[in-house]
Amino acid sequence: MGIVVQKYGGSSVADAVGIKRVAQRIVNTKKQGHDVVVVVSAMGDTTDELIDLANEVSPLPPARELDMLLTAGERISMAVLAMAIQTLGYEARSFTGSQAGVITDAEHGKAKIIDVRPGRILEAVGDGAIAIVAGFQGVSQTTKDITTLGRGGSDTTAVALAVALDADVCEIYSDVDGIFTADPRIEPRARKIPRISYEETLEMAAQGAKILHLRCVEYARRYDMPIHVRSSFSENEGTWVVKEADVSQKDSSMESAIITGVAHDRSQAKITVVGVPDKVGEAAAIFRAVADAQINIDMIVQNVSAAATGLTDISFTLPRGEGQMAMAALAKLQDVVGYQRLGYDDSVGKVSIVGAGMSTSPGISARFFEALSQAGVNIEMISTSEIRVSVVVSETQVEAAVNAAHTAFDLGTDEVEAVVYGGTGR
Amino acid sequence: MGIVVQKYGGSSVADAVGIKRVAQRIVNTKKQGHDVVVVVSAMGDTTDELIDLANEVSPLPPARELDMLLTAGERISMAVLAMAIQTLGYEARSFTGSQAGVITDAEHGKAKIIDVRPGRILEAVGDGAIAIVAGFQGVSQTTKDITTLGRGGSDTTAVALAVALDADVCEIYSDVDGIFTADPRIEPRARKIPRISYEETLEMAAQGAKILHLRCVEYARRYDMPIHVRSSFSENEGTWVVKEADVSQKDSSMESAIITGVAHDRSQAKITVVGVPDKVGEAAAIFRAVADAQINIDMIVQNVSAAATGLTDISFTLPRGEGQMAMAALAKLQDVVGYQRLGYDDSVGKVSIVGAGMSTSPGISARFFEALSQAGVNIEMISTSEIRVSVVVSETQVEAAVNAAHTAFDLGTDEVEAVVYGGTGR
Repeated sequence: MGIVVQKYGGSSVADAVGIKRVAQRIVNTKKQGHDVVVVVSAMGDTTDELIDLANEVSPLPPARELDMLLTAGERISMAVLAMAIQTLGYEARSFTGSQAGVITDAEHGKAKIIDVRPGRILEAVGDGAIAIVAGFQGVSQTTKDITTLGRGGSDTTAVALAVALDADVCEIYSDVDGIFTADPRIEPRARKIPRISYEETLEMAAQGAKILHLRCVEYARRYDMPIHVRSSFSENEGTWVVKEADVSQKDSSMESAIITGVAHDRSQAKITVVGVPDKVGEAAAIFRAVADAQINIDMIVQNVSAAATGLTDISFTLPRGEGQMAMAALAKLQDVVGYQRLGYDDSVGKVSIVGAGMSTSPGISARFFEALSQAGVNIEMISTSEIRVSVVVSETQVEAAVNAAHTAFDLGTDEVEAVVYGGTGR
Repeated sequence: MGIVVQKYGGSSVADAVGIKRVAQRIVNTKKQGHDVVVVVSAMGDTTDELIDLANEVSPLPPARELDMLLTAGERISMAVLAMAIQTLGYEARSFTGSQAGVITDAEHGKAKIIDVRPGRILEAVGDGAIAIVAGFQGVSQTTKDITTLGRGGSDTTAVALAVALDADVCEIYSDVDGIFTADPRIEPRARKIPRISYEETLEMAAQGAKILHLRCVEYARRYDMPIHVRSSFSENEGTWVVKEADVSQKDSSMESAIITGVAHDRSQAKITVVGVPDKVGEAAAIFRAVADAQINIDMIVQNVSAAATGLTDISFTLPRGEGQMAMAALAKLQDVVGYQRLGYDDSVGKVSIVGAGMSTSPGISARFFEALSQAGVNIEMISTSEIRVSVVVSETQVEAAVNAAHTAFDLGTDEVEAVVYGGTGR
């Protein structure tokens, strides 16, 4: 049997008890005859505690040193995990990102992996040892300084290592059982999805489902590495994220499903630029200003201009945390663009239906909007992709919208599964 | 001006307040025109906390992984210290032992430095930056694994770096003002020694004075690197540890002093092997057994054998922590050696007088023993070197013995200095 890469998040290794549980799980996989390479995040709240310490001495900690500091977190968890495995009678060796050959660019705090040279990992596995690798970190090719990969970094480390090692699968463990048709805290009839395509997972992640990070799914898709999302607290099969052909082929029960899941996102705000003169270049000026402020916008809607005034409104959504910065950037622009005023609304939410079958099934949007209408949900903005329809609604109506969509597309199970749907941290 | 290497111990950087204070001190040195390279230990109790964590998952943590774990401690302190310096407007870059070029053998937990290749440190200093280096750690030349240097490791890192960088001085900072003629907690008239030779410092350290570790002094002596022992809590000059010629030459007030200081050690125990047949090879068998158990013995005394019985007693001292192991090793030997019984006494203490002038001044031992006798102190064992006389006494008489020796050799000052004489940790 080949190599299995397993990634355990911070909640799975929050304390000694968790580390011992994970160690047992890793040993069980080894006993089944697999070569096992493990990627681990920092224990529980370690990262936050280290950031607090940095803030005690520095209002704006320099990025190179912050990376040096934060990488101590995985160093601790990986060494302790290796000890726990050895206590069970199996050899284990821990490796930093640098030792594992995770080569990145020099962008501290959000470095990108540019190469993986896992010579020492292969050597350890060849010796029969279990290799434990620090997630979230690497070493810069140019400066030789230690870097961190930013949000989703440990998942990305795991997938990148799995690709470099030609592993059979990359297993991503957290405290949830897999990817669900909707957030079970909102939709009690939500069902675990057995198989889902990379593309659908990307849309789900982009639209607010917090199981996997975009970067890691993009990496897996590029190299066709299967991801198995599962819980470290149970032995249940989780969700397999695979290429589209493998979803329909192997899971006949899903063939007829047009919609795979409903995602929602309460982290966004809406900005409306009211009374923009409807002439060439105005929209460009507005979005250039926002882009220059390094703000990621999501949906954009421009109304048809009123014939009488020649003025139009432009609305867009963006992460709430960046709202004030965007408003400041736009305020500087009022004289240039000549708009009337700015509106800011952070009590909005986004609800999306995602499904690869959508592109060949007409009427999906209509069915979605009808369901929302019957539930009394008012649609503020709409955007679509090949395999997704998203709407912005009032934050108070997010739950009703999720329930309505879930029911309208027959996604539910009759049993209510007892799971918690949470974030994965790094 | 040249390079100054400064080493700060864990008590100096125990929290954010301490780190900021040390940062200011480093910046002050930089402002005086020096290039500054700093070696730092882990913050306060970090190392103990990491060891506790290891023990939670493993009864006997594997050495490679324990080193990986413990080196997270300096990684944290050095990054935070670099941040604190940058906050003061000076560039600082932190480096792990491996990045700083500290190459060791592969003996995890007690690695020896075999080379220092400080290319990155010189580069940083050349750029005008302050380099912060993790003490206590290095990287194995053969396995490329991370190693720790064991007790005194950070001091040794500092001296080794100072030598490799051809620094002007290696400053070792702790919470005490320097090396004293005796422990001021026991002898209130103890005086700070302005200059002391490497050899005397070695004897003081070996005999229980806890300011500097043997390894670091040996390294400094070999390469003639001056050490300045001082407190990070005051601006006072501390104690200069230099070669013998520089002590007498520059400090005329010390020329007449025969005894430099009085050291004491309460960490030892005494084992007596009673009734050993007085024939060739018996002592060798006893000490081979103890050596095979990896136990470091210190003083050895063999009594003249009683003519009537042909039996003798052999006593030796050793660290208390190794007492039970030594007793077990010796117990196995009873049939072979045919001794009568074993005695174990851990309520002993050792008091030593140290001074380079001793070798040319007759009568020193006599004066020492007379002083002890007048103080009512009973001598259990005696050992001497070129520049030292040590006695083992009852633990309850250690204090009286230190006071008697200090007075007998006129070491005291009239003022009582308000200092605390403590250990340096790593």
